Amino acid sequence: MRTIDWIDGAVVIVDQTRLPGETVYLRLESVDELVAAIQRLAVRGAPALGVAGALGVALAAAGHEGAQEQAHAVHLLETARPTAVNLARGARRVAALLPSFDACLAEALRIRDEEIASSAEMARRGADLVERLCGPGVRLLTHCNTGGLCTVVDGTALAVVFELHRRGKLAGVVASETRPLLQGARLTTWELAREGVPHRLAVDSAGPFLMARGEVDAVILGADRICANGDVVNKIGTYAHALGARAAGIPFICVAPESTVDLATASGADVEIEDRGAAEVAGHGAPDGTAAVNPAFDVTPAELVTAVVTDERVFSGRADGANGPAVG
Amino acid sequence: MRTIDWIDGAVVIVDQTRLPGETVYLRLESVDELVAAIQRLAVRGAPALGVAGALGVALAAAGHEGAQEQAHAVHLLETARPTAVNLARGARRVAALLPSFDACLAEALRIRDEEIASSAEMARRGADLVERLCGPGVRLLTHCNTGGLCTVVDGTALAVVFELHRRGKLAGVVASETRPLLQGARLTTWELAREGVPHRLAVDSAGPFLMARGEVDAVILGADRICANGDVVNKIGTYAHALGARAAGIPFICVAPESTVDLATASGADVEIEDRGAAEVAGHGAPDGTAAVNPAFDVTPAELVTAVVTDERVFSGRADGANGPAVG
Repeated sequence: MRTIDWIDGAVVIVDQTRLPGETVYLRLESVDELVAAIQRLAVRGAPALGVAGALGVALAAAGHEGAQEQAHAVHLLETARPTAVNLARGARRVAALLPSFDACLAEALRIRDEEIASSAEMARRGADLVERLCGPGVRLLTHCNTGGLCTVVDGTALAVVFELHRRGKLAGVVASETRPLLQGARLTTWELAREGVPHRLAVDSAGPFLMARGEVDAVILGADRICANGDVVNKIGTYAHALGARAAGIPFICVAPESTVDLATASGADVEIEDRGAAEVAGHGAPDGTAAVNPAFDVTPAELVTAVVTDERVFSGRADGANGPAVG
Repeated sequence: MRTIDWIDGAVVIVDQTRLPGETVYLRLESVDELVAAIQRLAVRGAPALGVAGALGVALAAAGHEGAQEQAHAVHLLETARPTAVNLARGARRVAALLPSFDACLAEALRIRDEEIASSAEMARRGADLVERLCGPGVRLLTHCNTGGLCTVVDGTALAVVFELHRRGKLAGVVASETRPLLQGARLTTWELAREGVPHRLAVDSAGPFLMARGEVDAVILGADRICANGDVVNKIGTYAHALGARAAGIPFICVAPESTVDLATASGADVEIEDRGAAEVAGHGAPDGTAAVNPAFDVTPAELVTAVVTDERVFSGRADGANGPAVG
């Protein structure tokens, strides 16, 4: 099962808003359809969004429209979700080959295949690191969904979890439910169950306390953007887990493809954090008309991150190498 | 509107599981009915639970049953929720007067009236403290529900919020939704709106990030139990907010009646934390059969608490005075 692919002239995705109840594939034949799917989180996760941006430009190229319309389509794709750097990068890399449809599609498929290979690399490097830091029988906590559903196959942080499980080194996982859209409750539990990994679901705010109580040996999760100074921009709640890990003295590990590293962004303070509005939060029992503050992401300062694992390296501190070589 | 009262031979409560949609009063004529209401959180909050335990024993005394049945009823009340010290204390204080119904009822009503007076004292002391620490135009973050719905009238931490609002010193409040039962989203927003206090709802895990981003000047919340060493046992998520406040360098203030102080419990490590099972967590979109870890409370170490405000004093550090006099 691929989360996103190009099939017979269209982008085909698994509609993640229907999981875990139903497995529905959507065939998206226009950029507008794809942008709408991205915005309602039918496809999500940094690596999958990179592939979506890339395939989206191939869709635009297939439309035989003029240069101005194609440029507008690329802009729509790049800005569909402002915090997701992979989305804009995937779109731009392919847009450089416009107007040739053949060249655009070939490049987009190359991005897809690179993501598949990158998951396997992250799994190996991350599992080696966790084994080295925590030994066997490790108990992990993860946040949001970083499995195959956020890449093309396999995933990022969850790929490490699966690899540790295959090696027989994993005792179990706490999955954080990840409000407001419950990607952990709906998607991560579904992927863990499918792979037979022992797991328990917890409300997001329980994470730091479970760490303090000694029930978690390490936190492992993804990243939507890694800044030049090593700050990690990821799903809201990541920072709170990082504070918990620091207080408990356990490793806090981010796993993301190298494409998530954004050296053009100096630090987390420079990142525009998307606010997704009141409906997602206030729609759960609050009185009508309740206002909300709903940042979709937060910033975890580099000093709280034990290590970042990418498909190319393992590093601590700055992402641009300015404070010395990578640690693995 | 009183959250809990004794009317014509029965305990009458507002059913908090129906708010904010409907305001339904329940008439509870037996200890079994009251215990069931406590366990499904139709009545909740430490002070209100103290009154519930007290009035419950009056119900048992009214039943004209034997000493053994009455003792059993007291035991059911004491243990209806294991972490709530006020519940057991209220029940025991009245149980000392068994079998006299008149004496039990008089004592239970005294506990009710003490709680009403105590809310007014906490409001005054807490508002004075926040004004002193933060000045005017303060922006607060609160967690769970600590308004009139968790006491008899007025509340604890939310009583302070209301008092600051009346004084014209409050810029606004972020209400944390408080998973899994959403007491913040359902109840706190309802109470804040009723009093005209500007507020925004946020997912629990956004709290520490909003503090890091400079949007919160102080955290103010309640406590279910305050241990002798000053550790605070409160709704799950409290500890994560405390870590966020420490990292952001802003005050973290607990407001609770003196009856919440439990000098017989040395520290938070000695408190049995209730796990409320999988249904509350996994019932929100997770695949069937998903296991959960669902601690209802957490422990915030005393060193993360700027001050505890009770109806009698304001203190930092130990609750038993072993490290010096109260600070206000």
